[in-house]
Amino acid sequence: MCTTHALSVPSAGVPLEKTAIERRELRPDDVLIDIKYSGICHSDIHSAYGEWGGGIFPMVPGHEIAGIVKAVGSEVTRFAVGDRVGVGCFVDSCGECEYCLKGEEQYCTKGVVQTYNSLDYDGNPTYGGYSQSIVVTERFVVRIPDALPLDAASPLLCAGITTYSPLKRWNAGPGKKVAILGVGGLGHLAIQYAHALGAEVTVLSRTLDKSSEALGFGADHYFATSDPETFAALAGRFDLILNTVSANLDVDAYLSLLRVDGTLVHLGAPGTPDQYNVFSLLMGRRSIAGSLVGGIRETQEMLDFSAEHGIAPKIEVIGADQVNEAYERVLRSDVRYRFVIDVSTL
Amino acid sequence: MCTTHALSVPSAGVPLEKTAIERRELRPDDVLIDIKYSGICHSDIHSAYGEWGGGIFPMVPGHEIAGIVKAVGSEVTRFAVGDRVGVGCFVDSCGECEYCLKGEEQYCTKGVVQTYNSLDYDGNPTYGGYSQSIVVTERFVVRIPDALPLDAASPLLCAGITTYSPLKRWNAGPGKKVAILGVGGLGHLAIQYAHALGAEVTVLSRTLDKSSEALGFGADHYFATSDPETFAALAGRFDLILNTVSANLDVDAYLSLLRVDGTLVHLGAPGTPDQYNVFSLLMGRRSIAGSLVGGIRETQEMLDFSAEHGIAPKIEVIGADQVNEAYERVLRSDVRYRFVIDVSTL
Repeated sequence: MCTTHALSVPSAGVPLEKTAIERRELRPDDVLIDIKYSGICHSDIHSAYGEWGGGIFPMVPGHEIAGIVKAVGSEVTRFAVGDRVGVGCFVDSCGECEYCLKGEEQYCTKGVVQTYNSLDYDGNPTYGGYSQSIVVTERFVVRIPDALPLDAASPLLCAGITTYSPLKRWNAGPGKKVAILGVGGLGHLAIQYAHALGAEVTVLSRTLDKSSEALGFGADHYFATSDPETFAALAGRFDLILNTVSANLDVDAYLSLLRVDGTLVHLGAPGTPDQYNVFSLLMGRRSIAGSLVGGIRETQEMLDFSAEHGIAPKIEVIGADQVNEAYERVLRSDVRYRFVIDVSTL
Repeated sequence: MCTTHALSVPSAGVPLEKTAIERRELRPDDVLIDIKYSGICHSDIHSAYGEWGGGIFPMVPGHEIAGIVKAVGSEVTRFAVGDRVGVGCFVDSCGECEYCLKGEEQYCTKGVVQTYNSLDYDGNPTYGGYSQSIVVTERFVVRIPDALPLDAASPLLCAGITTYSPLKRWNAGPGKKVAILGVGGLGHLAIQYAHALGAEVTVLSRTLDKSSEALGFGADHYFATSDPETFAALAGRFDLILNTVSANLDVDAYLSLLRVDGTLVHLGAPGTPDQYNVFSLLMGRRSIAGSLVGGIRETQEMLDFSAEHGIAPKIEVIGADQVNEAYERVLRSDVRYRFVIDVSTL
């Protein structure tokens, strides 16, 4: 066991505070990571506030982890001390089910072990990246290419893969018209990936406020959804709409923007149901879908793709003392576009 | 022009009555069909009752038409007098848009001309199959194979293609687990197609009433959805669920029955919206989709496939005098499984 500094949420909705936690002794296949940066994901806040129910407290959030390998277990073959590495949303899976075998551990039939707010297969709670070190089996560690700064790399471990994976799954690429709904932590990465994959990218945002930035990220077009003309002008336009906004949506209005066989993909979930008129689906064989992060193999692919194409989130690095304030700013959408905690300040 | 006997709905919700209508003179590419049988589709009733708004009255319903070619225009090449033919849900489309060129006329960007309750491109109302003859451009006429009786073939022109097309689109076949929700006019055909395509077929119906018939149509399994155990037993089971029921659905409950990447496809629409929890989609990258009949090329393929595999609807042939009663029986779900009008009784 080793003790490490961390930021923990004592109970649901209570501010984070500095604490110390234990990390397990290295098993033969484990990697000990000296965490340098940990991104703040909106889902950290949902979890810390107990909004999704069943939170395990005290909770150490954080599943966008970037750091340096400090030690490796005796059987680790893929990593060595000094390697630049990352850990994303989960730290274990059964490794044997059809989804694990396909590299889609997020859909493990036994149930993936999440990086925090989860119980590992021994029944111990997992603690996340708002801490100075973490021990993870090497299967769930990815390599951060040298071209990516560690601070900017950290949000890719969740926000990056969450947007990259559905773009690949629904074949965003040359000749495809893709709309990105929302320009936030997810949206500003989705624009960059969709552009780099060769798609024609349209950004849909409530107002025109972020248009110049969105075009800078690679968007070809930008429309304000608060303007009703937008929906008439873009009717039947898109092969794919990625909804990066976790609020309830006028689903029928967005379905009307899809071409035949087009798909509206949710990447985040509001707390209450969405509704749709079945005719909106029938008239154009359209689909509504959802996508949940991505597997480890694809996460590595996403990091390599990001390095190759110069894709990174725009971040605001903060100290540990600013995390509670950062949570409030995320809730006010007052961040462009992702907070990253410098965990050396813990 | 030629006059033909027909059954028409004078205005929304008024019983059908015998009348006479005019059919246009043959154009060079037209086929005059001596209608023998016309199926009754639930959508005829929605339209006759004005439930979908904008009905054109008097209305002659019917888009499941089987008959014999009586005359052909000077430039018709694919059909000759005496041929056994069918006409389905539409009788014209632009022929030039990308969807028409792909043979998916149902999604024509100019707007397909429906077989009835529609205006043709000259602005004239279209009248459907509850009549003794119809004139249709040869592009929208399909050949009914000799192995299919004309009476049983007629419902295939809508109910058949409506179920066959999504099974093909979502790759129902060997190794795939397909659920058919509902055993009615659509459902009993969907079971037969899914089975013939090689999928493992499970029928989901409110009660066990239709289990022996469903197994006779080729179902491998049958479960009652009124039994809550069903949803636990079948969790995560299916690649594809075809919802042949037009009532509102507990969408989340059915999504829970899908495997990763599974799809729930609606084939009919209730009058009010359905709702879903986005988590139901995220957890398994699941989709909700809709499918609207199929194109002319695929309709011909469906008829040939039906003939080859001995697939036909179970029908009750009625005379013209029984149509109003038949409508009431459809609304009470008192038909196994499709009414077909013998139009010689007109």
